[in-house]
Amino acid sequence: MVTARPDSCFLAACRNEPHDVTPVWFMRQAGRSLPEYREVRGEGSINDAIANPDLATEITMQPIRRYGVDAAILYSDIVTPAHAIGFGLDVVPGIGPVVEEPFRSSDDLHRLRPLDPEADTPYVLETIDNLVAELDIPLIGFAGAPFTVASYLVEGAPSRTYHNTKVMMKARPDLWFALTDRLADLAIASLQSQVDHGAEAIQLFDSWAGSLSAADYEKYAMPSSAKVLEAIEATGVPRIHFGVGTGELLGLMADAGADVVGVDWRIPLAEARTRVPEGTALQGNLDPAILGAPWEVVEREVDAVLDSNGGHPGHIFNLGHGVTPTTEPEKLEKVVERVHQFRA
Amino acid sequence: MVTARPDSCFLAACRNEPHDVTPVWFMRQAGRSLPEYREVRGEGSINDAIANPDLATEITMQPIRRYGVDAAILYSDIVTPAHAIGFGLDVVPGIGPVVEEPFRSSDDLHRLRPLDPEADTPYVLETIDNLVAELDIPLIGFAGAPFTVASYLVEGAPSRTYHNTKVMMKARPDLWFALTDRLADLAIASLQSQVDHGAEAIQLFDSWAGSLSAADYEKYAMPSSAKVLEAIEATGVPRIHFGVGTGELLGLMADAGADVVGVDWRIPLAEARTRVPEGTALQGNLDPAILGAPWEVVEREVDAVLDSNGGHPGHIFNLGHGVTPTTEPEKLEKVVERVHQFRA
Repeated sequence: MVTARPDSCFLAACRNEPHDVTPVWFMRQAGRSLPEYREVRGEGSINDAIANPDLATEITMQPIRRYGVDAAILYSDIVTPAHAIGFGLDVVPGIGPVVEEPFRSSDDLHRLRPLDPEADTPYVLETIDNLVAELDIPLIGFAGAPFTVASYLVEGAPSRTYHNTKVMMKARPDLWFALTDRLADLAIASLQSQVDHGAEAIQLFDSWAGSLSAADYEKYAMPSSAKVLEAIEATGVPRIHFGVGTGELLGLMADAGADVVGVDWRIPLAEARTRVPEGTALQGNLDPAILGAPWEVVEREVDAVLDSNGGHPGHIFNLGHGVTPTTEPEKLEKVVERVHQFRA
Repeated sequence: MVTARPDSCFLAACRNEPHDVTPVWFMRQAGRSLPEYREVRGEGSINDAIANPDLATEITMQPIRRYGVDAAILYSDIVTPAHAIGFGLDVVPGIGPVVEEPFRSSDDLHRLRPLDPEADTPYVLETIDNLVAELDIPLIGFAGAPFTVASYLVEGAPSRTYHNTKVMMKARPDLWFALTDRLADLAIASLQSQVDHGAEAIQLFDSWAGSLSAADYEKYAMPSSAKVLEAIEATGVPRIHFGVGTGELLGLMADAGADVVGVDWRIPLAEARTRVPEGTALQGNLDPAILGAPWEVVEREVDAVLDSNGGHPGHIFNLGHGVTPTTEPEKLEKVVERVHQFRA
């Protein structure tokens, strides 16, 4: 259901095609930094909010109205498919995904049955239907990459060391590949359904891939991510592949089948471009931490990102990671304005 | 008070000199992974344990007796000097350094008066005196690098984003450089006194430097670290410079004045060696997370580290970060044995 949209600078940049204005959106643009979000969300579980299409639609739209960004991103979570098939996890405010019974052995594989998006996540698809009817910019659908989703299921909670995950991948490669293959199938089914309902681009979040060496990434994480990205290729929508601290992995993340690779603030865009194949677009890479500084500092940093890109058409301005809860929305408004004013 | 010690493979490796056996020690080798540590430490504050020379000596010695490592590292903390001059911080178990009143403005500078090691940290020096009398291997002294210590003082608690720290460095560079200059002076005074009492090498911990881009590291963190390392040069003891996720910074961390640069598991040693000037030794780089795997997996990973080094004399085997609390001591015993057996 991809529509031609010659007016979208975001889609043009994803495809490395010439366009007038540098597109910009922000990871976690919908969320706790917005007072209107805090107002409608209340204290309930994020899973409940995602399962309420009217609420999820409203939350997705809030930053669009406020910021004038060039893409919307579905309000959902990378663990939503695993939650929907009953793996038994919750997203705890201030902590993140927490799993009641972590994935530990082959006995847990049956807990990861295939996803039937129309039956298991009808609310996601209804939210997308609502959004496509309302939006005049592209909607980005997304999924978690198998490595990062596996890290939540195996650790049971957010981790700094990925201790159990790394032990499983190296001590039980059979189990690891069975797990990540099922997670790849979940991601494919979810992304395919999102595109069928009108998402015009997708982002695969491998947020924690940067905890791996390049050799381990290539062996243990890349195959299942490549399976996802290759399966979505036939849809024709641009595929964005994102992680944090992935300077050493940018080439592999492109090779996995990405049209756009996310870059965090540790690597200048000009340097990142030397690490990916020609024709790969880049997304990034303002440090979200710097948004707490006075505007003149933020402006200088925004300009440095744009300068480092040097007018290359394959650039989508974004942060290097998600908007933090304490970010003032006014800062993001001004960032959008500054990016849109920029002419290389 | 540096003594010639022709029999130390550790000191030889620090100096890139030929020696027979690959030296090995582990960051946090003294600590929660050892039952004998948990027994003597009890539930009190780490600050109290550090201030008790008999206890700190015993804790430093425990891994020496058990593992047969080639260097001891003083049981202390990177915030000990700031604590000793009354900055007002505690090290909370399971959390890390927590500061009552974080450093926020120039009014806080007076809280960082110069350190007089003999008066302010006599217990540290007494511990070193004890250790030097007891040890037949070199003792490593250490300090926190100004950037990393500043991140604790400015954030008030361990952070994942270093939000306030990064804002201060870019929005208030005058204040930032005044702060890190004082922290450099603290580190210099502390390290100098440790060497005077017999530490035969020092390690500068810039654990969180990897959160910065190379350009920001060079501008905001490297100058104060270089001041520390240059001041210690005259002592003649090897200087180890360590951080996590610093693949992009290895050359700069060497240029700051290091004889040895720490490398985490994300970059193979062979690759790391291309990023530092010739003559720089390397320390690392087994992933501590993998120590939870069965021995045959750990052994394979140990061998991969040694193979990547390829018999270069300038290599000290270590982990890429500290020993985690759940690590079985038996695993580390076997790692030492394996490293010592290795012949390139």
